[in-house]
Amino acid sequence: MPPTSRTVPLDRLESLLAAAFERAGLTATDAATGAEVLSTTDAWGVFTHGSKALRGYLARLLAGGLRPRGRPRISAEGPSWALVDGDSSLGMVTSVFAIDVAMEKARKTGMAYAGVHNSCHFGAAGYYATHAARQGLIALSMANDIPSVASPGSRGAITGSNPFAYAVPAGRHRPLMLDMSIATVAGGKVYAARERGEPIPPGWLIAADGTPTDDPALYPEHATLTPAAGHKGYGLGLMIEALAGALTGAAMTWQVRSWMAGDLSRPTGHGAAFVAIDAGTIHPDLPARVEALIDEVHAAPRADGVDRLYVPGEMEWQRYDRARRSGVELPPDVVHSLREAAALVGLDLGDYGLGDEEGRP
Amino acid sequence: MPPTSRTVPLDRLESLLAAAFERAGLTATDAATGAEVLSTTDAWGVFTHGSKALRGYLARLLAGGLRPRGRPRISAEGPSWALVDGDSSLGMVTSVFAIDVAMEKARKTGMAYAGVHNSCHFGAAGYYATHAARQGLIALSMANDIPSVASPGSRGAITGSNPFAYAVPAGRHRPLMLDMSIATVAGGKVYAARERGEPIPPGWLIAADGTPTDDPALYPEHATLTPAAGHKGYGLGLMIEALAGALTGAAMTWQVRSWMAGDLSRPTGHGAAFVAIDAGTIHPDLPARVEALIDEVHAAPRADGVDRLYVPGEMEWQRYDRARRSGVELPPDVVHSLREAAALVGLDLGDYGLGDEEGRP
Repeated sequence: MPPTSRTVPLDRLESLLAAAFERAGLTATDAATGAEVLSTTDAWGVFTHGSKALRGYLARLLAGGLRPRGRPRISAEGPSWALVDGDSSLGMVTSVFAIDVAMEKARKTGMAYAGVHNSCHFGAAGYYATHAARQGLIALSMANDIPSVASPGSRGAITGSNPFAYAVPAGRHRPLMLDMSIATVAGGKVYAARERGEPIPPGWLIAADGTPTDDPALYPEHATLTPAAGHKGYGLGLMIEALAGALTGAAMTWQVRSWMAGDLSRPTGHGAAFVAIDAGTIHPDLPARVEALIDEVHAAPRADGVDRLYVPGEMEWQRYDRARRSGVELPPDVVHSLREAAALVGLDLGDYGLGDEEGRP
Repeated sequence: MPPTSRTVPLDRLESLLAAAFERAGLTATDAATGAEVLSTTDAWGVFTHGSKALRGYLARLLAGGLRPRGRPRISAEGPSWALVDGDSSLGMVTSVFAIDVAMEKARKTGMAYAGVHNSCHFGAAGYYATHAARQGLIALSMANDIPSVASPGSRGAITGSNPFAYAVPAGRHRPLMLDMSIATVAGGKVYAARERGEPIPPGWLIAADGTPTDDPALYPEHATLTPAAGHKGYGLGLMIEALAGALTGAAMTWQVRSWMAGDLSRPTGHGAAFVAIDAGTIHPDLPARVEALIDEVHAAPRADGVDRLYVPGEMEWQRYDRARRSGVELPPDVVHSLREAAALVGLDLGDYGLGDEEGRP
């Protein structure tokens, strides 16, 4: 019987994730970091990058491609920059370490860059930018990945889908937050459509001959994501390769390994980059000015049938508040994936309200 | 008789622009800066943002909305940041000043931000990023503008078309350079179509009722540019409002004045932001790694009928080399605009090979 969607309290989901990471060998602190990132991502409704990824991370932690007791460390630094060696730790652990380094330096000099090498898939880029914005800093967050996105005129993949996020403090509003892939859509959405057995809209993928396809099953072996807005998405993808790959010493393009497939015992080599800007020092009115900007958007004329003009991140924060209040409704593919993840580390999901319909653990 | 396109040596065009700026009251140094930016932009083939804009800048310089002898200065600073008061100088003068400040600080600390207020339209964002990349630094460049781009669901404009550019040193290759608007297309392309009397492709504009239109004459009063890739372009537009507007103290959205129309005697209040990263300190292999990345793109499989996969900026550099060799072919609308500009300051275009077809100056 296929799983249905299940609603689970957010703190229960977070406990489940922490317990699973601890069973895979992480310290309680690192497990809590991973759990906080993935549960927040689910609460935002970004299910492609939340706890659905637990299965893949656990498999790699158990096989050694991720080191459960890895310790990210600064490998080189200056007043406003650092390179961070992720030591093949969980991407969330290394990324929180790195954004914290960037924030600490930015508080001293105004802004700072932290480039990460020897990392892995870091989940939702927006989490790390938001982590800084909640503490009053503006932040950018980005990462490279295995090639999956075409360039204008190419037959196959040229860059990764290379997530890019920013967050900006916004006074009485939640931080402005954009979390985007440079692809027309993130690969996770193609996988999700495949798992749901649904076709995808034309324009998301090109097949191996360069023509559009609506078959998600071709991806990633025989199809390639298109870049968002053509040369613009492609160009941003190469910027991210430069900042998160070339400048950090990380693996790039075809040297990056898939975090989901292939030899799970080997590191993936992903890179990431974080920039923090100490808005409070540079221009203390920043949050008030962004608050006013958001108010202006909310008051702007809307097209017929449109109830509200949203600013980036606003829908995610609304879902987050609802999830905190009433639990997070995990889609069937996430429930399925969590059950497989739990089985990898012998965790009883019944303890977390996620046992299967027949009451099996 | 309408003008035809005209080919002019690049150094002749640069001399013309410098002479025009000097006649409007700029110092020889500032005039040379403006001329270098605009002629380089034309050489790249980005005619919407090159010498075609001279007429608008001169009109504002003559009317006082731009101060011919304005002096950009640092109004506040720290180790890795500065705010620059543009003193209502020509946008090119203030922007080169600001990217130089960011570069100087980045060489000391690793990276730096320079935010500009009290500026005006700065032309091609890519110029300033390239200025840094030619000296070994990675740079970002962006600016806000009067609202001209819709958000998903809006009836009118929410953000400016807010240019964003980056440039990255690339070893034996020219710098990687992307210069994009967050709109599906830049407003200048709509104006150019209008001046040429051509319709625009559907998808570029929405009319006042929110439906697509192909009539460039509706813009900007009765139509609005669409954001590139929907919420992604819109979200990047708000990031630029935050970094180039809210964080700098510049005017924002409806407080910015048009650089082309309205009261030419008043400052426009534009903001801009520049980020410089000292790649040579952080990771000396950066240029070699980006060089290899570009080689990899060039060697990648191409779709049928595609001769070459370009990296961002490569087409512009090819045009630049051709312009240096054989002159720059100015389209008719640019020639027309230059003649109007020359008339404003009593400059004889015949001296620069751009007199009209009947030999009038």
